[in-house]
Amino acid sequence: MNYSAQQLEKFTTDVFLKLGFPPEVAGIAARNLVRADVKGIDSHGVARLSGFVRLIKNGRINPNAIPKILYETPSTARLDADSGIGLWTAHHAMNIAIEKAKTAGSGWVAVSNSSHFGIAANHAELAIKNNMIGFVMTNASPLVAPAGSIEAYIGTNPICVGIPAGKYPPFIADLATAAAANGKLEIAQRKEQDIPTGWVQTREGNHSTNPNELKEEGTLLPLGSDVERGRHKGYALGSIVDILSGVLSGANFGRWVPPFVSFLEPSTDIPGKGIGHFIGAWRIDAFDSADVFTSNMEKWIEGARSLQRSEGIDEILIPGEPEHRMEAIRMKEGIPLTEKVIEDLKKMDKDLGVNIEY
Amino acid sequence: MNYSAQQLEKFTTDVFLKLGFPPEVAGIAARNLVRADVKGIDSHGVARLSGFVRLIKNGRINPNAIPKILYETPSTARLDADSGIGLWTAHHAMNIAIEKAKTAGSGWVAVSNSSHFGIAANHAELAIKNNMIGFVMTNASPLVAPAGSIEAYIGTNPICVGIPAGKYPPFIADLATAAAANGKLEIAQRKEQDIPTGWVQTREGNHSTNPNELKEEGTLLPLGSDVERGRHKGYALGSIVDILSGVLSGANFGRWVPPFVSFLEPSTDIPGKGIGHFIGAWRIDAFDSADVFTSNMEKWIEGARSLQRSEGIDEILIPGEPEHRMEAIRMKEGIPLTEKVIEDLKKMDKDLGVNIEY
Repeated sequence: MNYSAQQLEKFTTDVFLKLGFPPEVAGIAARNLVRADVKGIDSHGVARLSGFVRLIKNGRINPNAIPKILYETPSTARLDADSGIGLWTAHHAMNIAIEKAKTAGSGWVAVSNSSHFGIAANHAELAIKNNMIGFVMTNASPLVAPAGSIEAYIGTNPICVGIPAGKYPPFIADLATAAAANGKLEIAQRKEQDIPTGWVQTREGNHSTNPNELKEEGTLLPLGSDVERGRHKGYALGSIVDILSGVLSGANFGRWVPPFVSFLEPSTDIPGKGIGHFIGAWRIDAFDSADVFTSNMEKWIEGARSLQRSEGIDEILIPGEPEHRMEAIRMKEGIPLTEKVIEDLKKMDKDLGVNIEY
Repeated sequence: MNYSAQQLEKFTTDVFLKLGFPPEVAGIAARNLVRADVKGIDSHGVARLSGFVRLIKNGRINPNAIPKILYETPSTARLDADSGIGLWTAHHAMNIAIEKAKTAGSGWVAVSNSSHFGIAANHAELAIKNNMIGFVMTNASPLVAPAGSIEAYIGTNPICVGIPAGKYPPFIADLATAAAANGKLEIAQRKEQDIPTGWVQTREGNHSTNPNELKEEGTLLPLGSDVERGRHKGYALGSIVDILSGVLSGANFGRWVPPFVSFLEPSTDIPGKGIGHFIGAWRIDAFDSADVFTSNMEKWIEGARSLQRSEGIDEILIPGEPEHRMEAIRMKEGIPLTEKVIEDLKKMDKDLGVNIEY
């Protein structure tokens, strides 16, 4: 069964309103959640709404958060998100970065005391709309084992860079620094399929193709997967994200990053507040005429698209293009939700008395 | 045979002086070249000196370059390096970034018209010395095929982030965005050994373990190596580096980035000037008290080091630690050079009349 983005956004907004969020925050958070479904990143869309509701109900997310800038310079700020919802906080932080970039050329906001911000690409798109390059990172609860370890220490910690590309859809690279994000394991679990080697290791550090390995104390592997193919690089990238998002901001980091799921309690004796993001923007015309940049960016894309392809490959895709195409389809045909997600939404509807038609 | 870092630095400085560089530029360029040997990155050290000499002699590197800021804002600058030597230009660009960060909180310099800058870590270390986080990227001539392609379009394009770590050696992640850098293939070539699958593909797009595959129109694979293990991520990361370093700066990008080797002519009809770098610094105390950051950074490192290890692993290493240890060894015991490199240096000595004892 397909639902329109508007339906899901309206429902999600109403859920947040019922839980006490101010209308502007509810609207932006809802839009950012549903944008994941629109782009085909189903793991990060309304499937996560009930998880947010539980965190709000048990007080770990504050609907009436008032973020506060603790320190700033012309191009930087450190923001305490006051336990707000990351879906809106990251948007707010990017707006601060954009305002700083307008006068200082670039803007950087390290955010502590926040929560899950949905897909990073949403926040980078805000910079793109302002003809800036967006830079978005967040840390997340530990699932990935550093090179040589069998214990999780870093999250799937995404790196996202979004770049305006003139007449083409923007270049948006948004990638987990693990070999595969947890969402891919969940898909394999639902389909009861084996996963490729290189995604997870057992608690003894051996290869595994079991999509349920994490439930048996296994860990995700960093991008690169093994010694030969450069797992130390994925480990380094995930660590950079953790340090910029967590250590620099005053949030938690490493093993201490609180989990998204409400049934797991955060560690006690934690070094910081909530989870952290690191969000920035470079103004393109702080470096060059925007026209020159745009024309060369188009040339970059055309050059990549015209490369010789491997057998069986129809076209060379630019980062962000698969999601852009899915957006066109889903805005027209609606968003297919699984039975489980629909039941989840219906249950929330009943519990909260949203009474929306869907 | 081992040589001291001082010997090699003196020799390299003298070579640059003979070729007409001003003393300050010669000294810094020489130091940055030899630092690669000191840290154990032998592929990027004095083994490359004769390559630089050829580029200088045929006019592609200008010893008397005067870099010029073409445009700037409080936190950004675009620099035309005037065909200067990257080993010094990147150092100069980082100094500009640091000066901007002192007042604006962060500083960003997009550099065009430059050349090979050695190992990125050198330039990040300059930020670390100023209690800043250094961010260093460069593009390079195309060797890596985007996901789905059998044609090289991006270089091994490194990402380097250097972070001060209090009582511990700094955290320095410096990684090629290919599964393996070309230097690793060269080592296998010398040893006449097969390479692991996942590093290169044949010109038809098949797996290969031949270290000479690039000479037969093969290409390097992006970090992630194959579809299942996320090669699209390495492709995206390498592309980010190319766009920030090349497109944003006004340098060349994609297939048009000029080669390091002098016997290959740069393409005609190129879109920009030379190769490009993207260099930046965030001042740590623009976000938080440096003491709080340092103490949490130490905690991050201690947390990682204390993780449970896989069988056969003696310790969890922090990014930058292997190079830091090699530095301690080589500063004491000297730098072992291969016969081929020694011959190369002797030939330069003779050709240029450096007449140095080594």
